[in-house]
This record gives sequence, C-alpha cells and structure tokens, in this order.
Amino acid sequence: MNLTGKTKLRRLPDRGTHDAGAIYEILDAAFLAHVGFNVSGQPFVIPTLYGRKGEKLYLHGSATSRMLCELEAGVPACVTVTLVDGLVLARSAFNHSMNYRSVVAFGTARKMDDPVRKINALLVISEHLLAGRWGDVRGPSEKELKATSVLEFSIEEASAKIRTGPPHDGEADYALSTWAGVLPLELTPGIPVPDSRLTAGLDIPEYVQRYRSRAGQDSKG
Amino acid sequence: MNLTGKTKLRRLPDRGTHDAGAIYEILDAAFLAHVGFNVSGQPFVIPTLYGRKGEKLYLHGSATSRMLCELEAGVPACVTVTLVDGLVLARSAFNHSMNYRSVVAFGTARKMDDPVRKINALLVISEHLLAGRWGDVRGPSEKELKATSVLEFSIEEASAKIRTGPPHDGEADYALSTWAGVLPLELTPGIPVPDSRLTAGLDIPEYVQRYRSRAGQDSKG
Repeated sequence: MNLTGKTKLRRLPDRGTHDAGAIYEILDAAFLAHVGFNVSGQPFVIPTLYGRKGEKLYLHGSATSRMLCELEAGVPACVTVTLVDGLVLARSAFNHSMNYRSVVAFGTARKMDDPVRKINALLVISEHLLAGRWGDVRGPSEKELKATSVLEFSIEEASAKIRTGPPHDGEADYALSTWAGVLPLELTPGIPVPDSRLTAGLDIPEYVQRYRSRAGQDSKG
Repeated sequence: MNLTGKTKLRRLPDRGTHDAGAIYEILDAAFLAHVGFNVSGQPFVIPTLYGRKGEKLYLHGSATSRMLCELEAGVPACVTVTLVDGLVLARSAFNHSMNYRSVVAFGTARKMDDPVRKINALLVISEHLLAGRWGDVRGPSEKELKATSVLEFSIEEASAKIRTGPPHDGEADYALSTWAGVLPLELTPGIPVPDSRLTAGLDIPEYVQRYRSRAGQDSKG
C-alpha cells in the first residue's frame, strides 16, 4: 500500500493519517463502503457491504450487478468508508463540525473465479458483518456461487481522517450565551425481529443478541 | 430532473424507484453524502454534509477543499446517500441482505458567490443537520464567509433504492433450524456532552435534547 500521491492530505493535516493501523481500525469498525468508479467519464458512487483481510477488501453481489461488472475490468476505483460519531455544535455557525472517522482507499478490483477462494471471501464478508453467523447458515450451493460475483479490491493507496472532541471556537465567541458541545451519534441495534416463518423453538442467537456495531466498541475503548 | 438513462435500474427493479417523493424523503432523512468525481480519470469519493432545497443540494467546506475546488468547475458528479436500517439474516448465506434506503443522484455543481445566497444555503445545510440550531449561533462573519465555499449541486437524474422487511429464503430452506429475521439498526443520539468552557447556567437546548435522526422518525412513521 503506497501512502502518498493521490491521498495527500491537503487540508487540516492534523485530522489525517496514512498509518495502516488507523486505516485498518476504521475499515474493521464499519461495514458499509461507498465505491466510486467511472463509466464513460461519469462518476458512479454505489453503497455496498465489504469485508477486509490484510490489504484486500472483498465485495460481492449479483453476477449481473453493474458495479461489479464495471469494477472487474480492473478500472481505477475508490472505496470510501465513513463512521459518523457525533454532531459538533460550536458557538459560531462557522465552527460547527462533525466527529467522524473515514478512510479513502484507491485501488483496483479483480474478479475471483476459484470457487474455494470465492467461498473464503464470502466468509470474510459475512464474519465482518456479523461474527458467528457463517457457521449457522446453509452455505452457498454451486448454483448460488455462480450467481454471485466476488471481487478482491487491492488497496494501493489510502488515508484516514478522524475528528474527535469538542468544538473549537474563536476566543471571543466563548463568552457567548450559546450552548456548545457534542451530540454523540452511534449506529445502534434495535430489538431483533424474528422471521414469521421461523422454525418453532429457536432462540435468538447469542451473536445477534450481543451485537453492537464494532464502531461503538472501538470508539469507547 | 431527468429520471432515465444513467440511473436505469438494472437489477431487482422492485427495489428501485425514480419517484421524486421517495428520493426527497431519503435525502431529507439523511445528512451525510458520499460525493464522487474524477481527477484525471481517477475516481474520488469524499464524505460530506449537505442540505436540500427542491432539486438542489448544498455542499460546503473550506475554500481550499480539494473536493469543492474540483466540483466547482462543473465536472460530472455523483452524490450518493445511504441509510442503513438493518441486517437481514436469512437461513442461507446467499439470501442475507441489508435493509437500507439509498439515493444515487447525478448532476453538476456550481460555486455560489453572492454572500446572501451563500448564507441562505448555509442556513439550509444547518437546519437540515439540526433544526433550530441556526437561530442560536453567531452567524458567519464576512471573513468566515470568504473562507467558506458553498456549492449548489443540481440533481439532473436520480434514483432511489429501498429494501425493507424480512429475509426471503428458498422454500426448502424454511425447514432449517437456523434463526432468521432482521436486526434493526439506527443512528441514535447519545447523551449530549457540554463543552468544558460552556457559559455557566446554559441548559441543553430543547432541539438537542429531542434530537432523533429523521431517518428513524421517517422509517417508523
């Protein structure tokens, strides 16, 4: 992974980092990516789930997915992941901000053809999304595997940006009678909704009951 | 807003719509966009806050922001907004999915120069993020306004995709002893954290205390 060039942090460099550990931590805490690619000069940005192993991100979807069909040609792509941590409310409109963690990763994808490698990549995606789930479900059939495209995206260059903490107001503004602070935000699980055709006597699995987005766990230590 | 062409929904057309009402509802429920644009053929995807008024989205940031400097040249851009509503846990790995609402909007941006129009656009962004806040804060000074770029993005073409409801398994799989259902997810506010230099005697404003992402309000009627 090359950490210069395209991802050179031009603005607020104190918020940015090329540290691989920080980049991986954010990629592991999130599960939704926005993938950018071009079709005849028109940029497309499509949301998709992913998994990570080392410097590789795994994407999957229908074999007829436009995004995957475009990406598998090896075109330049950008995978961006953002975790929203809070609204930063300053005393001035100008100094309002957001607490967040984001990664912008550049690279190219290639289609995986080998069925064993495909299944391993699907396992990585599944465990990334919900650890413990894969062992509980019926694995992909040959037909299902054929209907699924799995892409391996190699991160060639990446950067992370993180903003945490309170608002920063201009010195004169601290005297204002305006409430200031942070409103934390976190993607939180609700109560699991069992399928109406659930086999009788099945309890909610422990890994579903104790689910907490890894984003929250990370940000709170 | 033209609703054909680039955003033609190729796959799972039952999940997609070109209905302007559905598109606006999602754009109004979210506040974070991922903006795609090209620099010398390399796609970039950058997260940013936004506001909406009619067919216009308003973006803002530092006058030195790379994204805004690229976009203000009127290059083709893509603004994508995604709300995650839940993990859809099927009995088969293949039928796992996500409940979500997303909008992919194509168009071009132009820089706003008139100070009054700029301030009005900043108000739209601020009220979109946290209704009630704008009236409480010190508005932008002339210097701050000069240091801020505000872009008006005209939606030329857009589509929405929505997935809701339970997993859909193959008929034979309903007999499996695998728990299936939906784990709802929602971006939820935590307890507001007052700034350490807060003027004494200030209560947390009512619009902060009662904050709930509009995503949640919308999805629950």
